[in-house]
Amino acid sequence: MDTLSPDSPSPVEVDSTPGLSRRGFLRAGALAGGGIAAVALAACTPAAAPPWTYAPSAAPTVSPPPASPGASLAAAASGEPSHDASHAPASSATPAVDHDANAAAVIKRFLGGEAATLPPVNAPLAPKVAGDTRVFELTIDAIDHRIDALKDPVKALGYNGVWPGPLLSVVEGQTVRAIFKNNLAESTGVHFHGQRVPNAMDGVPHITQEPIQPGASFTYEFVARTPGSHMYHSHHNATDQVGRGLLGAFIVQPREPAKRYDSLYGASQDIVWISNDTLGGFTINGRGFPATAPIVARLGETIVIRFMNEGIMMHPWHLHGMPMRVVARDGYPLGAAAFTCDTLGVNPGERWDVVVKCDEPGAWAFHCHILPHAEGPDGMYGMVTALIVQDKAAAVSLAAAGAPAYTCVIPASG
Amino acid sequence: MDTLSPDSPSPVEVDSTPGLSRRGFLRAGALAGGGIAAVALAACTPAAAPPWTYAPSAAPTVSPPPASPGASLAAAASGEPSHDASHAPASSATPAVDHDANAAAVIKRFLGGEAATLPPVNAPLAPKVAGDTRVFELTIDAIDHRIDALKDPVKALGYNGVWPGPLLSVVEGQTVRAIFKNNLAESTGVHFHGQRVPNAMDGVPHITQEPIQPGASFTYEFVARTPGSHMYHSHHNATDQVGRGLLGAFIVQPREPAKRYDSLYGASQDIVWISNDTLGGFTINGRGFPATAPIVARLGETIVIRFMNEGIMMHPWHLHGMPMRVVARDGYPLGAAAFTCDTLGVNPGERWDVVVKCDEPGAWAFHCHILPHAEGPDGMYGMVTALIVQDKAAAVSLAAAGAPAYTCVIPASG
Amino acid sequence: MDTLSPDSPSPVEVDSTPGLSRRGFLRAGALAGGGIAAVALAACTPAAAPPWTYAPSAAPTVSPPPASPGASLAAAASGEPSHDASHAPASSATPAVDHDANAAAVIKRFLGGEAATLPPVNAPLAPKVAGDTRVFELTIDAIDHRIDALKDPVKALGYNGVWPGPLLSVVEGQTVRAIFKNNLAESTGVHFHGQRVPNAMDGVPHITQEPIQPGASFTYEFVARTPGSHMYHSHHNATDQVGRGLLGAFIVQPREPAKRYDSLYGASQDIVWISNDTLGGFTINGRGFPATAPIVARLGETIVIRFMNEGIMMHPWHLHGMPMRVVARDGYPLGAAAFTCDTLGVNPGERWDVVVKCDEPGAWAFHCHILPHAEGPDGMYGMVTALIVQDKAAAVSLAAAGAPAYTCVIPASG
Repeated sequence: MDTLSPDSPSPVEVDSTPGLSRRGFLRAGALAGGGIAAVALAACTPAAAPPWTYAPSAAPTVSPPPASPGASLAAAASGEPSHDASHAPASSATPAVDHDANAAAVIKRFLGGEAATLPPVNAPLAPKVAGDTRVFELTIDAIDHRIDALKDPVKALGYNGVWPGPLLSVVEGQTVRAIFKNNLAESTGVHFHGQRVPNAMDGVPHITQEPIQPGASFTYEFVARTPGSHMYHSHHNATDQVGRGLLGAFIVQPREPAKRYDSLYGASQDIVWISNDTLGGFTINGRGFPATAPIVARLGETIVIRFMNEGIMMHPWHLHGMPMRVVARDGYPLGAAAFTCDTLGVNPGERWDVVVKCDEPGAWAFHCHILPHAEGPDGMYGMVTALIVQDKAAAVSLAAAGAPAYTCVIPASG
Repeated sequence: MDTLSPDSPSPVEVDSTPGLSRRGFLRAGALAGGGIAAVALAACTPAAAPPWTYAPSAAPTVSPPPASPGASLAAAASGEPSHDASHAPASSATPAVDHDANAAAVIKRFLGGEAATLPPVNAPLAPKVAGDTRVFELTIDAIDHRIDALKDPVKALGYNGVWPGPLLSVVEGQTVRAIFKNNLAESTGVHFHGQRVPNAMDGVPHITQEPIQPGASFTYEFVARTPGSHMYHSHHNATDQVGRGLLGAFIVQPREPAKRYDSLYGASQDIVWISNDTLGGFTINGRGFPATAPIVARLGETIVIRFMNEGIMMHPWHLHGMPMRVVARDGYPLGAAAFTCDTLGVNPGERWDVVVKCDEPGAWAFHCHILPHAEGPDGMYGMVTALIVQDKAAAVSLAAAGAPAYTCVIPASG
Repeated sequence: MDTLSPDSPSPVEVDSTPGLSRRGFLRAGALAGGGIAAVALAACTPAAAPPWTYAPSAAPTVSPPPASPGASLAAAASGEPSHDASHAPASSATPAVDHDANAAAVIKRFLGGEAATLPPVNAPLAPKVAGDTRVFELTIDAIDHRIDALKDPVKALGYNGVWPGPLLSVVEGQTVRAIFKNNLAESTGVHFHGQRVPNAMDGVPHITQEPIQPGASFTYEFVARTPGSHMYHSHHNATDQVGRGLLGAFIVQPREPAKRYDSLYGASQDIVWISNDTLGGFTINGRGFPATAPIVARLGETIVIRFMNEGIMMHPWHLHGMPMRVVARDGYPLGAAAFTCDTLGVNPGERWDVVVKCDEPGAWAFHCHILPHAEGPDGMYGMVTALIVQDKAAAVSLAAAGAPAYTCVIPASG
């Protein structure tokens, strides 16, 4: 058991020597907390909680680093050149102990499952079904929002009380009826960014509608004609209102099942990744590292990530270990213009869909490469998460255990 | 008649209940002012002033919003779910009246035709023709430039007295002779950005030429060999001189008519969109919202927009309602690398040509999606305009009225 | 001989009337200094020093401009419209003499060969060969680094004592063994950005390894499986450590010779261009203008430039005179998504490979088009260099002189 710092009120046992096969991730008995965390960023609800939780506990642990450098997370990998035994400081050097201690502590919080201690993000909102119409009912509220588990909540705004708002998903051709009730003390308007809508449904106050006054409601209704990755957000005093959290993902699945990512690419996870960079600092899906949830995949699995930028700065997302195939931009398939990269700049308002073949086992950093958005003098923070690819042994044990099939939170059919 | 604020010295009647067919836009009797505005951003000169002016008057109107929310601009659209009748504030809420009033007022200025009260932008400069040579004569001047109709003019610089400078347009293979007379109290140099020129014509003082001293002239002469969207601007103390307005569009039409946008895409408008972000704040073609001119098109019309960034920041341009097909970069056709999007990041120095099929009627916001470049606590400002797509009834009435055929300001032939 | 300013301690003779053929560049007797400078940015070692040095001397010269405007560098070009004879200031104008003097002086330093007075950059590190393994031994050191020849050195960090670190180059399929000895007073970790590596070799302290303590070493070993343009840099306290210089280029040549740029495109120069924008300001390969080295090519030559961004801002690189064909992104060939442009935005962490056909003779500015990264009130600085294309006469005289064939510093074979 690790030594615990005084500000970690819920000491828990942490697997202190995880190797590449990460027993911690597979401990099926600890699903309740970690399971939620594992799919928080993935924005997916498994048929049952998946067994690939990466931590046995729900409580964040903030610990000083081992007095002597312990085994690294990858230390179990055999056959690789190892850490030089000599750790004696150079005679003229004073080790920067404080930085390393803080950097280790924050990573421990991340790998210890801090995301699991917070509500899941991008949870889909189940619509009421009325023939071909999908009815979504949302409120617009002032909320207290936690960027991570330790900082005081920020005074934010949310659709249905959360930031990002609930994930709205329909199939091309369905009619969307989205009823927004404004519980704020200020007026607002909602724009479905990327959709073709009747002009009166475009959500730009004073141009296409009057502002939605405090206490009032407004119903947006349109046929979902533009498949792909889109967003909904405030278009009223928007620098402020979007910055404080009035934003969410709007996914339109193609009418033809063969064009959906599970069919097209064999993707078994379909992940929404919304960035913001104002209130609460640098966030992914409303969380800052170490409260960002990792993406967890099995070796060989193919996943889709839908980057959406709701902030005011470009962020170049860099995935370690394996490349991203970029297949769509703003919902439109790139076709012959598709490309492969490991670092993808996403400008405000843009959406980019990428496919990742998870063929390299390990824990791979996944972060904004504007380094001050990702790391400071006290370690990593903000726009950092990881793609954790479980090796074959883990995948086999999962199947043997009768692990439930993964169900993407973005419904492939209506 | 609307109530007028004291700082609106020229009260005019404004159509206060415009619907989708926008009678205001079609009032053929009011072409003199609005007509210029309508093509200001479009940078086009109609054979006669087009009848699609969106405002009947030349004077900006700054009015407080209606005491009770009036009909929205899109209220005439039938068959759409309407605004909820309940406008009672939530019991705990205080309506943010001031923001809404200011936001409405600035939009009213925009839709009321503020752009029409200012000189047109991107007006083409007719060259003298000498065989295959096109001779452009320009002065370089200190100017007072209006970002909008209400703010005090800024002390700026301009070619031929305007910011952006006049649009220069030639056909591939023609010889360009551009004579610049420096009326400034400081030296300068002019770079044709994107062109292949003899090195001595490249306009980089101390490397390819001496600076053009105050009172002196310099003649740039070269064969226009690189078709597409290019620019000319200062390359001397350029952070300052370009920031203050020494910039303009330089268009080289392909020699083969079949390669021009009217032939290639059936484009009937060819619009230059130059952004800047230093002196005068966030501007499109030297104007900030609400003095930016809307693009006005008929339903079904195809238009081309040439984004050019003369500022120091990337701007992601977002068009509501319909997508943009991106067909050229820096003047070079993208070919198989062409793509479709609704938000397009344009970096400083880049030019991107996009084709828009105007197939959704209505008034569509068109703005930089770095929200603080587009909206503040008092409403929208800076890098905002709109694409106004007139519906079929409007188009028919235009034809019936014998409206003149549109003539693009960018000459398709020399 | 030019008049020298007091702060130029090493007066040297400078060819004061260079024309397009630039006798200075061809003075074969002055190779020792200028030759190094000519290939500093090009990061290439000629079989013997190339004769296309652009300056006869190694010492920077800081001179006031001529009292009367002298012949411009391109003045020798005949048949072009010339500078207007009238230099009389406008009656109301006061010439901005100071700016011009400073601007001219800094360009004179650049063309006079300031880069040649500083150590070369991106020099390749020759590995020890052990079968299929390439062993690179590097130290991590605190260094004094010169951004240019006149400013005081900055307290920086370097691999093997230089910023950028030495260029590491291998062939796809070779095993890389890179041994880093940490001579700093702080811990660190090294990430091979863009490579597929075993997770334990990914260089993210506390996730894939323990930090490399002061005085300790760490060996990274992996098979180079991802061809193309990659980087190595600190991934520990990285905002600070990369900002201070812990970065370098890592090139993996494709296993098939036919896929290498010399075969694919006939490229005879293969140039690494790493930008940074924190400590030391805006730099290319660790130098700011006028200490950036120009790229020097013969008319008709094809060159490859590999842009790599190790900074925290996007930089749009603009080449005057001729376009860039963009063929790879992050090491992955773009294929059908390849495109042509003259201004290319490169985000932090991204790498873009471009091919330039040097078919326009002259000295062409090549700079970041965010103008405040390139020019200030006292002239150009920071992210500016030039592509100097020698005309045919020069190329012929080179061949006649038996000039040695150029050898790219990036070995095409291992």
